[in-house]
Amino acid sequence: MTTTQVTLIQIDNYGPWTVTPEPRREMDLQTLQSRLFADIAQFVGHRDAYVFFTRFDNMIAVTNGVDGAAHAALQESIGNRYPVSISLGTAVAERPVDALEAANGRLQFEGSAQDEGRTEVLAGEYLAETTPGDLQIAHFDVVDTTGKYTDRINEFDTFINIEQAYASLMRNLRETHGALSFFVGGDNIISVCPDLPERAFADAVAHVEDDVDVELQVGIGRGESAHEAGFAAKHALEDCRRDGTSVELFGPRAVSD
Amino acid sequence: MTTTQVTLIQIDNYGPWTVTPEPRREMDLQTLQSRLFADIAQFVGHRDAYVFFTRFDNMIAVTNGVDGAAHAALQESIGNRYPVSISLGTAVAERPVDALEAANGRLQFEGSAQDEGRTEVLAGEYLAETTPGDLQIAHFDVVDTTGKYTDRINEFDTFINIEQAYASLMRNLRETHGALSFFVGGDNIISVCPDLPERAFADAVAHVEDDVDVELQVGIGRGESAHEAGFAAKHALEDCRRDGTSVELFGPRAVSD
Amino acid sequence: MTTTQVTLIQIDNYGPWTVTPEPRREMDLQTLQSRLFADIAQFVGHRDAYVFFTRFDNMIAVTNGVDGAAHAALQESIGNRYPVSISLGTAVAERPVDALEAANGRLQFEGSAQDEGRTEVLAGEYLAETTPGDLQIAHFDVVDTTGKYTDRINEFDTFINIEQAYASLMRNLRETHGALSFFVGGDNIISVCPDLPERAFADAVAHVEDDVDVELQVGIGRGESAHEAGFAAKHALEDCRRDGTSVELFGPRAVSD
Amino acid sequence: MTTTQVTLIQIDNYGPWTVTPEPRREMDLQTLQSRLFADIAQFVGHRDAYVFFTRFDNMIAVTNGVDGAAHAALQESIGNRYPVSISLGTAVAERPVDALEAANGRLQFEGSAQDEGRTEVLAGEYLAETTPGDLQIAHFDVVDTTGKYTDRINEFDTFINIEQAYASLMRNLRETHGALSFFVGGDNIISVCPDLPERAFADAVAHVEDDVDVELQVGIGRGESAHEAGFAAKHALEDCRRDGTSVELFGPRAVSD
Ligand SMILES: Nc1nc2c(ncn2[C@@H]2O[C@H](COP(=O)(O)OP(=O)(O)OP(=O)(O)O)[C@@H](O)[C@H]2O)c(=O)[nH]1
Ligand SMILES: Nc1nc2c(ncn2[C@@H]2O[C@H](COP(=O)(O)OP(=O)(O)OP(=O)(O)O)[C@@H](O)[C@H]2O)c(=O)[nH]1
Ligand SMILES: Nc1nc2c(ncn2[C@@H]2O[C@H](COP(=O)(O)OP(=O)(O)OP(=O)(O)O)[C@@H](O)[C@H]2O)c(=O)[nH]1
Ligand SMILES: Nc1nc2c(ncn2[C@@H]2O[C@H](COP(=O)(O)OP(=O)(O)OP(=O)(O)O)[C@@H](O)[C@H]2O)c(=O)[nH]1
Ligand SMILES: [Ca+2]
Ligand SMILES: [Ca+2]
Ligand SMILES: [Ca+2]
Ligand SMILES: [Ca+2]
Repeated sequence: MTTTQVTLIQIDNYGPWTVTPEPRREMDLQTLQSRLFADIAQFVGHRDAYVFFTRFDNMIAVTNGVDGAAHAALQESIGNRYPVSISLGTAVAERPVDALEAANGRLQFEGSAQDEGRTEVLAGEYLAETTPGDLQIAHFDVVDTTGKYTDRINEFDTFINIEQAYASLMRNLRETHGALSFFVGGDNIISVCPDLPERAFADAVAHVEDDVDVELQVGIGRGESAHEAGFAAKHALEDCRRDGTSVELFGPRAVSD
Repeated sequence: MTTTQVTLIQIDNYGPWTVTPEPRREMDLQTLQSRLFADIAQFVGHRDAYVFFTRFDNMIAVTNGVDGAAHAALQESIGNRYPVSISLGTAVAERPVDALEAANGRLQFEGSAQDEGRTEVLAGEYLAETTPGDLQIAHFDVVDTTGKYTDRINEFDTFINIEQAYASLMRNLRETHGALSFFVGGDNIISVCPDLPERAFADAVAHVEDDVDVELQVGIGRGESAHEAGFAAKHALEDCRRDGTSVELFGPRAVSD
Repeated sequence: MTTTQVTLIQIDNYGPWTVTPEPRREMDLQTLQSRLFADIAQFVGHRDAYVFFTRFDNMIAVTNGVDGAAHAALQESIGNRYPVSISLGTAVAERPVDALEAANGRLQFEGSAQDEGRTEVLAGEYLAETTPGDLQIAHFDVVDTTGKYTDRINEFDTFINIEQAYASLMRNLRETHGALSFFVGGDNIISVCPDLPERAFADAVAHVEDDVDVELQVGIGRGESAHEAGFAAKHALEDCRRDGTSVELFGPRAVSD
Repeated sequence: MTTTQVTLIQIDNYGPWTVTPEPRREMDLQTLQSRLFADIAQFVGHRDAYVFFTRFDNMIAVTNGVDGAAHAALQESIGNRYPVSISLGTAVAERPVDALEAANGRLQFEGSAQDEGRTEVLAGEYLAETTPGDLQIAHFDVVDTTGKYTDRINEFDTFINIEQAYASLMRNLRETHGALSFFVGGDNIISVCPDLPERAFADAVAHVEDDVDVELQVGIGRGESAHEAGFAAKHALEDCRRDGTSVELFGPRAVSD
């Protein structure tokens, strides 16, 4: 069984800020957003957690092992260095989507994302301890993107293909299993999953191939932190590459069918 | 008629680098990618150009007004400060997708994105001068995201809605008009378009509503640079917000139906 | 008695890199150096440690509470994201300068800073636990810099004054007590000290006034981490400002005369 | 004859901000300051200008070739992305210190650096055009720092030596010639000079050796931008290294004795 701690990170009252007193230059907004994400990635990454950029104004993190004090430190540090502040809601559940739902609810309960009085909320429950195997992470990747797309067609059309594969996979795993899947650049998708057997991943790969005709391979790992599970998944993906297989579970910690 | 200069920015041989000598920590890759994008956004932004993160290993920029020397300076500066280098292909056409196709072809001609001997390619043609109205940019936004999604449902399900709207819009405008549309965070999509009449945007908005049941509004601007056209579009979008309309062209420079 | 853990951070073989294959643009070097410093400041700062930029190619950090695993994580993350790598030497002693001397010796023992074969050294001893009062930190500041200098004379001449105060103080505290003092911007100097009585600080302030005619005030704090001691020092400095005094010890933890 | 355009960059009302509502974490301030500097270095660097960190809350830039519109763009971009804003004063003179004095006066005229009503001042005169040889820049460096200091003594004592050389040189060149000299990390000092003959540099090197017993070498360049002059100086310094000389002028553009 998995135990997933999810944190929702929301920029406070960001929409109004982007157009006050008049619209801000788009490249400044892009810079602000991507650096904020990078800073959060460094912060949580050094605690073996993962964060995904999602919509940039709302980011989703998998934070097993990161306690309330660390969340408070992150919030303070961003407040000290950016023109915007962030709210953080955290919750724990077996299925990632349920953890997110609860984390998100804690912020929604305090007021609207665009309520200027609702800033720097810090609400949550944090796992008191971590256990090996709390997390299951799958790292999906498109087989031979370079040969089939990048070197052949224009980047936008390549992107449409990758994007379709992502859209198909994210919805399938969300509906079927309550997993949360994120595009992480290139041709890579990372899924934070509940306890799923190998067959579930083979089904997902088949679903995407049927649906949008893009061929995926996937490595799956378990661990007590997002990094540990994700790193095992990366190694398993290397096994796919080496052996030409499409689904690989990593070592002894992987769930059995 | 529009004249669009597009630059494809490609990280050289990035796939192999990410797993050599063994897989690198995901949060370090995320940090590297998003900071590289932020640096490029600052560089081109201060020259009134736009860049979009796309897949992060391949980024698409609209660079009217940015000459070959500036492209060379960007390439050198990134090479001096990052563990990876970039190649740049640039081309000009009426339709954005045709400019990208030609820009992309210049890099593909020099070798594979994963050919370790093909690094720091700098190939392109650059506009000798810019003319008012060279660019047409549309800034799309979801009506009342906060009330309908962000404050109500969990962030992943919100994201699925926004993502579907983006997927629907990007493919529609690509196929129908050769426009390039990019998600820029929150609920915003920026489209780099050829010369399109107001009706084309109303059709696109209707298409998305039919297709995935998400309601969009859109401001459209013209200009001699991406910033100028995009800024006019942002102002036009503010007009939508103020007047409750769904399509607004900006001022005297906007194309007439 | 104090127990200070000091880490020397050295960019590997940086001199040759700056001129290979030919001299690199100075502003790119400045950007690289200051961002590297910022990243290290964030990393250690979130662990309640302090780092000072010193010469930028060599930085000195006070790392009580940061263990070997965290040092290894920092080294790996920098190696993943920069075109240069870093070596880290760490040691513990009562007097800060003795800790630095030992930390530094660990790197020197492994080879020259410009030996291209000596990269990513990670050598050190780390405190197994921290105790309240392990560190004593003084935060010095010039009285009314704004009125006396910034608003009156040109910035370079202001800087000469501040710089002279710093030079005078750093040498005095180094020779007399083995303390390490760092300019941190504006008119601020942070000193990492052994266990010193209030009188020692009054003497230092008097010395600088005699020597270069710049008037200082100083807050002093104790703590089990650099942040805790430094934060207490900042609060004590606020007391100087409020009461017009020139030396303030912070609360119950401060050493008695 | 030289023509130097100098810009003073001042963070608005920064002192009060650092302690409001209570003192901010020092590592967050260090991060903010060094990233702000890095962003300005990138901005001006891509326009062939130089900026020096000086006291971080006040930075001095040599901006020949950068016009008022670019200064305004920098100010807006920083205001969009940081929790603090900046004021910019610019002026032109033959001697660098005179240009700074005038630039600085423009800000002082508008009010105190700590006047909360005085924000985002943009005042200045900008060169209408640039001419080859407008700038003379000297790049000083300590001979064999690695062998004499870095690999032998502890970093703080090394730093004391470098710092003394810098203090001696900066004051000497300021008083004798109105030149502005900046420590740029490692063992490097960059001086922005009026039109000086080779002998002046030999005298400065001798002065420092007499004064604090540190041996310098120096390359000197001319150019129409800081980068051009500074790059020529770097090449000349490489000539010192190759030939074991202590003063080298660069090529045909260098001033004759
Ligand atoms: N975020 C992330 N992106 C990666 C990682 N590995 C590769 N990528 C991205 O994926 C892109 C494609 O690289 P690969 O998947 O190695 O190339 P490919 O041509 O598809 O080859 P195979 O996957 O081996 O069939 C790269 O340019 C990166 O952007 C990773 O570990 N994390
Ligand atoms: N990139 C970018 N994102 C923006 C901009 N303006 C708003 N956003 C994003 O859009 C999100 C939603 O803000 P709004 O669109 O103002 O909010 P809304 O609830 O949809 O309200 P209306 O659009 O006014 O109906 C914000 O959190 C931002 O992430 C912009 O100019 N550029
Ligand atoms: N690094 C750092 N710099 C600070 C801090 N507080 C102030 N400064 C810097 O010091 C400069 C001067 O600010 P103050 O010391 O408040 O101003 P002052 O005019 O000297 O006034 P008093 O110190 O109150 O006499 C600011 O511009 C900042 O650069 C701090 O906590 N840390
Ligand atoms: N800012 C800056 N720093 C540099 C540059 N070149 C070298 N450095 C710094 O200077 C330090 C010492 O390098 P070198 O001067 O090459 O080494 P050295 O031992 O003194 O050797 P020589 O100068 O050749 O006698 C490096 O670690 C860098 O920090 C440069 O172009 N710009
Ligand atoms: Ca792949
Ligand atoms: Ca909206
Ligand atoms: Ca002060
Ligand atoms: Ca040297």
